[in-house]
Amino acid sequence: MTDRIRDFLATRRPDGPCMVLDLDVVRDNYLTFARTLPDTRVFYAVKANPAPEVLKLLADLGSSFDTASVAEIEMALDAGAGPDRISFGNTIKKERDIARAFEIGVDLFAVDCVEEVEKIARAAPGSKVFCRVLCDGSGAEWPLSKKFGCAPEMAIDVLEHAHRLGLVAHGVSFHVGSQQRDPEMWDRALEMAAGVFHACAERGIGLGMVNLGGGFPTKYLKDVPAVEAYGQAIFGSLRRHFGNRLPETIIEPGRGMVGNAGMIQAEVVLISKKAAEDEVRWVYLDIGKFGGLAETMDEAIRYPIRTEHDHDDKAPCVLAGPTCDSADVLYEKDPYYLPVSLSIGDKVLIEATGAYTTTYSAVAFNGFPPLKSYVI
Amino acid sequence: MTDRIRDFLATRRPDGPCMVLDLDVVRDNYLTFARTLPDTRVFYAVKANPAPEVLKLLADLGSSFDTASVAEIEMALDAGAGPDRISFGNTIKKERDIARAFEIGVDLFAVDCVEEVEKIARAAPGSKVFCRVLCDGSGAEWPLSKKFGCAPEMAIDVLEHAHRLGLVAHGVSFHVGSQQRDPEMWDRALEMAAGVFHACAERGIGLGMVNLGGGFPTKYLKDVPAVEAYGQAIFGSLRRHFGNRLPETIIEPGRGMVGNAGMIQAEVVLISKKAAEDEVRWVYLDIGKFGGLAETMDEAIRYPIRTEHDHDDKAPCVLAGPTCDSADVLYEKDPYYLPVSLSIGDKVLIEATGAYTTTYSAVAFNGFPPLKSYVI
Repeated sequence: MTDRIRDFLATRRPDGPCMVLDLDVVRDNYLTFARTLPDTRVFYAVKANPAPEVLKLLADLGSSFDTASVAEIEMALDAGAGPDRISFGNTIKKERDIARAFEIGVDLFAVDCVEEVEKIARAAPGSKVFCRVLCDGSGAEWPLSKKFGCAPEMAIDVLEHAHRLGLVAHGVSFHVGSQQRDPEMWDRALEMAAGVFHACAERGIGLGMVNLGGGFPTKYLKDVPAVEAYGQAIFGSLRRHFGNRLPETIIEPGRGMVGNAGMIQAEVVLISKKAAEDEVRWVYLDIGKFGGLAETMDEAIRYPIRTEHDHDDKAPCVLAGPTCDSADVLYEKDPYYLPVSLSIGDKVLIEATGAYTTTYSAVAFNGFPPLKSYVI
Repeated sequence: MTDRIRDFLATRRPDGPCMVLDLDVVRDNYLTFARTLPDTRVFYAVKANPAPEVLKLLADLGSSFDTASVAEIEMALDAGAGPDRISFGNTIKKERDIARAFEIGVDLFAVDCVEEVEKIARAAPGSKVFCRVLCDGSGAEWPLSKKFGCAPEMAIDVLEHAHRLGLVAHGVSFHVGSQQRDPEMWDRALEMAAGVFHACAERGIGLGMVNLGGGFPTKYLKDVPAVEAYGQAIFGSLRRHFGNRLPETIIEPGRGMVGNAGMIQAEVVLISKKAAEDEVRWVYLDIGKFGGLAETMDEAIRYPIRTEHDHDDKAPCVLAGPTCDSADVLYEKDPYYLPVSLSIGDKVLIEATGAYTTTYSAVAFNGFPPLKSYVI
């Protein structure tokens, strides 16, 4: 909670759930990344929060942008970034979207299979591609499936295929898992990346870039290491696995850039029990899984929640959203402790919700409007 | 797949994923419910699909409406239903929303606790309330949590409290679980409802209505009993538990009214493997969990998928959406069999997607627009 957000809420008194994001925090986060990893280009992951004010600020600060779709590429351009500062980082692209991006001037693309390489060779000839390699996501709070990336052995073939088709086999990317709390996880990934560099070199292909991905965490309930710890660990691993021939590196922070800059204000709609003898109360908010808190899926991300009664005793609650959907429950297996004096109509503040909230929000489920967003 | 949908797709050739809904099927479904349960009022669950054309058709046919929010109440009014045909069926309501509904003329409200009764007594004095009772959801494909409803013993107190506060203690509701494949599940719920009626009568309160809820299934991959089977089972149970003093009954079909009327057309964006030796292909569509297929959460709802190669041999696939989110995977634990000849760029038809798709869709996740909807 920043003073600026506190003042905004006190003055504007918005009705209905909303997310308020403080640009000063985003600026601080950007500068910390830039200072901590001085030789690494920052590609902000637009999907985390594509608010135009956020993109404008980051473009002005010199950030580059990791985009997932043509719409996100256009948003980055609108914010003032040239196409040379944009990576089309989604490994799953329609060929006509690749063509559109290339037309705009984008020439850096993610791939993880030969099929995608062939699309790029046809639709964006001569472009740079980096191959995403699978990496286990242990230590990450948001689940990492095998959806993106391929085995390292396959990555070598994919990059060679790109090279043969006239593309620039530019490098390797990986993702250690979103909200990754263990800085050492980059070490294993970098060892693997170095292996791909080496194997490609043996085939006469000189890779130049390692995309270190995202994964940098936001502080939710548990403490997380500072960005500095990540910087040191990554630099150490780069030295260890690449020696003196350090590759160009980029990072793609999303959550780590905007997560702690935003806060959701919500309202307690109902507090009740299911039976007279129940010990656990049900607390229903006016925001839930379909209103922006999708990352509570399987209770993965556990947000800090502040109330005006936090000095009082707390008791376990099941926390749920306002829709007529049984699945719209936020925390149940692991109940959330909230003040016993919390009442219907009270406001609650859900912290560290600047990333992966507004755009996840359902368009009109149950007739509820999407989450409002104020960027200040 | 109806002829009208086939013609629409062939003529209009829409670009990008879209849901096409055939109103003729909705009409048939409504008439089947009306014929099968002739003494039961139908309250269409607006949340399943609030397209204005659907609401207009159902209003014209005489349907009433189960609504989850003031916005849905306004949609039902716009479609031509008077407030006497509207139930505010969400048990979780802000007091100011109850007041707004009452101002509009709505006087039928769902409750499941004394706290909600007190809001209604203040904001909508004299209204009718029905108390939702917890009911186990076994046999249902979409998970039913304990989010809505209270224990039967508590329901008696809740209804008595309403009565004391000058509200009309109107009856009992329950929900046997969405996509309920066992018609006999209504029997247990009706036995319990009859128990609440009896206990209230002993306290001098005459309940009059049983809200049988929704749960009526749509045919996805597995066969489901016909609506007639549900009608017979429910009528038998009503007789068994209420004897000759049958209560007024209402049903709230949502999925059962519109599920099989709609179909999503999507496109294969990528087919790849993660390693040379993998046997299971990954098939990526241009629609996923955040683009309208939220009900694939935990692989709960398994949609039938048609391709132009269905006569060919099939092999297991992991099916995933187009976003840069690891969680955007539709079927993985239980792989989906698709034709080996399926190719990038092919169209696929995802059937029985008329319910719980369009409004679930994220507002702009990864820059992708919400699911387009055509009602024909």
